[in-house]
Amino acid sequence: MKLKHILESQQFTRPLLNELFTVADQMDRVFLRGGTQDYNNKIMATLFYEPSTRTRFSFEAAMHRLGGRVISTENARDFSSGAAGESLEDTINVLNNYTDVIVLRHNEIDGSKRAAEVSQVPIINAGDGKGGQHPTQALLDLYTIYKERESIEGLKIAFVGDLANGRTVRSLSYLLGKFERVKLYFVAPEVIQMKNDILEYLDKHEIWYDTVENLTSVIPEVDVVYQTRIEKERLGEQAGEYGKFVKEYYIDRNVLQSMAKHAIIMHPLPRLKEISPEVDSDPRAAYFRQARNGILVRMALLSMLF
Amino acid sequence: MKLKHILESQQFTRPLLNELFTVADQMDRVFLRGGTQDYNNKIMATLFYEPSTRTRFSFEAAMHRLGGRVISTENARDFSSGAAGESLEDTINVLNNYTDVIVLRHNEIDGSKRAAEVSQVPIINAGDGKGGQHPTQALLDLYTIYKERESIEGLKIAFVGDLANGRTVRSLSYLLGKFERVKLYFVAPEVIQMKNDILEYLDKHEIWYDTVENLTSVIPEVDVVYQTRIEKERLGEQAGEYGKFVKEYYIDRNVLQSMAKHAIIMHPLPRLKEISPEVDSDPRAAYFRQARNGILVRMALLSMLF
Amino acid sequence: MKLKHILESQQFTRPLLNELFTVADQMDRVFLRGGTQDYNNKIMATLFYEPSTRTRFSFEAAMHRLGGRVISTENARDFSSGAAGESLEDTINVLNNYTDVIVLRHNEIDGSKRAAEVSQVPIINAGDGKGGQHPTQALLDLYTIYKERESIEGLKIAFVGDLANGRTVRSLSYLLGKFERVKLYFVAPEVIQMKNDILEYLDKHEIWYDTVENLTSVIPEVDVVYQTRIEKERLGEQAGEYGKFVKEYYIDRNVLQSMAKHAIIMHPLPRLKEISPEVDSDPRAAYFRQARNGILVRMALLSMLF
Repeated sequence: MKLKHILESQQFTRPLLNELFTVADQMDRVFLRGGTQDYNNKIMATLFYEPSTRTRFSFEAAMHRLGGRVISTENARDFSSGAAGESLEDTINVLNNYTDVIVLRHNEIDGSKRAAEVSQVPIINAGDGKGGQHPTQALLDLYTIYKERESIEGLKIAFVGDLANGRTVRSLSYLLGKFERVKLYFVAPEVIQMKNDILEYLDKHEIWYDTVENLTSVIPEVDVVYQTRIEKERLGEQAGEYGKFVKEYYIDRNVLQSMAKHAIIMHPLPRLKEISPEVDSDPRAAYFRQARNGILVRMALLSMLF
Repeated sequence: MKLKHILESQQFTRPLLNELFTVADQMDRVFLRGGTQDYNNKIMATLFYEPSTRTRFSFEAAMHRLGGRVISTENARDFSSGAAGESLEDTINVLNNYTDVIVLRHNEIDGSKRAAEVSQVPIINAGDGKGGQHPTQALLDLYTIYKERESIEGLKIAFVGDLANGRTVRSLSYLLGKFERVKLYFVAPEVIQMKNDILEYLDKHEIWYDTVENLTSVIPEVDVVYQTRIEKERLGEQAGEYGKFVKEYYIDRNVLQSMAKHAIIMHPLPRLKEISPEVDSDPRAAYFRQARNGILVRMALLSMLF
Repeated sequence: MKLKHILESQQFTRPLLNELFTVADQMDRVFLRGGTQDYNNKIMATLFYEPSTRTRFSFEAAMHRLGGRVISTENARDFSSGAAGESLEDTINVLNNYTDVIVLRHNEIDGSKRAAEVSQVPIINAGDGKGGQHPTQALLDLYTIYKERESIEGLKIAFVGDLANGRTVRSLSYLLGKFERVKLYFVAPEVIQMKNDILEYLDKHEIWYDTVENLTSVIPEVDVVYQTRIEKERLGEQAGEYGKFVKEYYIDRNVLQSMAKHAIIMHPLPRLKEISPEVDSDPRAAYFRQARNGILVRMALLSMLF
């Protein structure tokens, strides 16, 4: 299978996901021996129209582990300096002469698609505006589940927190819909519960799910607890309930005790107050391993594009 | 010929230009095979006192294609942090210990010259203040003409738009004055027509030129149309004519039709509204190829300095 | 001896300092032949919570000379974007998956220690807040003295200027206290004279020192003049004396004439008005050689950590 660009989660079919997992597993071995110099004649540009040091570092470390080279900006708007603004299309056309792959974080929801339409070199979407796609995050989440459980079939997962606004949770739910016998629990107060578009997609694909308010009852049932952050500004008229919600969906030692031994806790990071630091040392805390898997998935995607 | 620093267009004699073209042609072959690792023990600093991501990326990609390494800042004023300001000379003396070449974009018109006076390692001027020199831009323009036409002798070129303020056009006119039988058409409204100092230089070197207002009559005559952007703020008392000028000097499909088959359109980029996007797909649109030639010329200059 | 992290000057024992000098001398030879590719599978992150281009460039050049790779930010606060702030500990845990060493400049005085407590990869303190440690600066100063004199035993050194607030001078005084027969002259107006904690430390270790106001009498006596900058804001009620102090502690050709032939002038840079540029060309002006030694010491420390 030939990948041309990486624009959205939806483009990843089951066979393509399987190939990605296989290549990411190979990259784990490359990573453990310190990397390769195989791609030392490749240049990657990280073209970020808004800063995201975390995502940028992950891509750049992946490229360096492959032996490649990086040119980098978190102020891509400077490209159109001294003028009311060069078009994204022109910027991409220019960069095509400089680099072998462009990692783009754009501030508009269709930025990556527009870039891909004119680009001769691969575009990787590293986040499209607010509410847009961020496919490599969803792919690293999926790979983490695969790697920790050795399979995704039959998975029982609880998504917890702000499910209405969480881009990550939406994309991952979508991807999980491609696998057999998965069970999804959406655990959130009603005001930030998973939206209907995803629920309808799951209905259509005959995926089992449940929307629940109470975390305690779900915890013992699942293989994965996927925690996210609740933000006060997103609660609208129920902002007054913020303190209560944070407490209700908090993961600490008590929650750990009712979790299955083989289960894991995931989190897209950054974490603020939604998981107690006392959880970090438990082997079921998988969120920092997720960051490592992010490197492996990005190494795999880059090598598949080259 | 030994190059020590690259400070201004004027330092490039005909023999040096010929050597540059030859080396840039060799770099095209290096570029096509993905680069070389020949300079993997060389470090380049991009020391930019004001951001110019476009220029910085071009130099950094060139250095990476040569196998070299880069340390980079677009906030070079931080060098003098916590103080009223370290002198540029001291900064250069310190950087001499860190790097093998310094690409300097300074905010003062004589920045590069001052740097070169104290530097043991080569200084490349990547833009000196407003109205100062930016020699690698002029050299890549000249190389583009050479590459597209296989010769510069006998060239007929139309410079269009804001010729009074365009640093690029002024430098390129200067360099073209070194070649035989060239004809320069300066096509602009009088308020932003080419200034007398360049015209006098051309007179002195017996170079043919004409200043005209009307674009239509010139287009069929020339091998190169070099388009630039007109800015309202530069029109002074005639700012009210801005809309009329933009329309009059616009390049679109109609202009293409009266151009010679072998002619090309150049532009220093970024482009705003002065060339219609419908022109991009015509093989005569050379402006994105110019960006690629920028890499080749910078690779050539770096390798000539080492 | 195995180094794990580089957090503060105090961790460097005499044997460790001797090892550092030996390795730095080896790095000088590596440097002169343009570097090595030995560490081309190592990644260093420069994680700067506040910009310091000078320090960042020095570390990055050192890493490149070792063949290594760099991911870099001077806006590390972006790591906690979109939130009230991720903890430093979480950021370090994430970065542990990306890199082989983390060079940290934090805005809080115990930043590096907190980072080291959770990090599996080495942390190098590149400056901890105001008044915190900056151990690699003190080490490069010490190495400069060693290299210029071939020994530190028996050294006579004059520290000049603002000794109350100068982090560098305090750390270097501390390190010199580990060597035999050194004599320290603290030359400053009383308001910014060396503080008691360092003087008591020297008393305890039976190190000879003197606090004096007059520069002229000390100059002929010493092997090293270590000049620092006096800042008006630091003079408190005596701000009115600023002009007088600057003049009194100024180093120019006259001061040079009363210095010993073998003596040297050092300065942590940036220099403003405290040393006349006419001094730069004298072979005793060692401050730009200090910058070069900074690269060697950082190369040595990195290779000792790997």
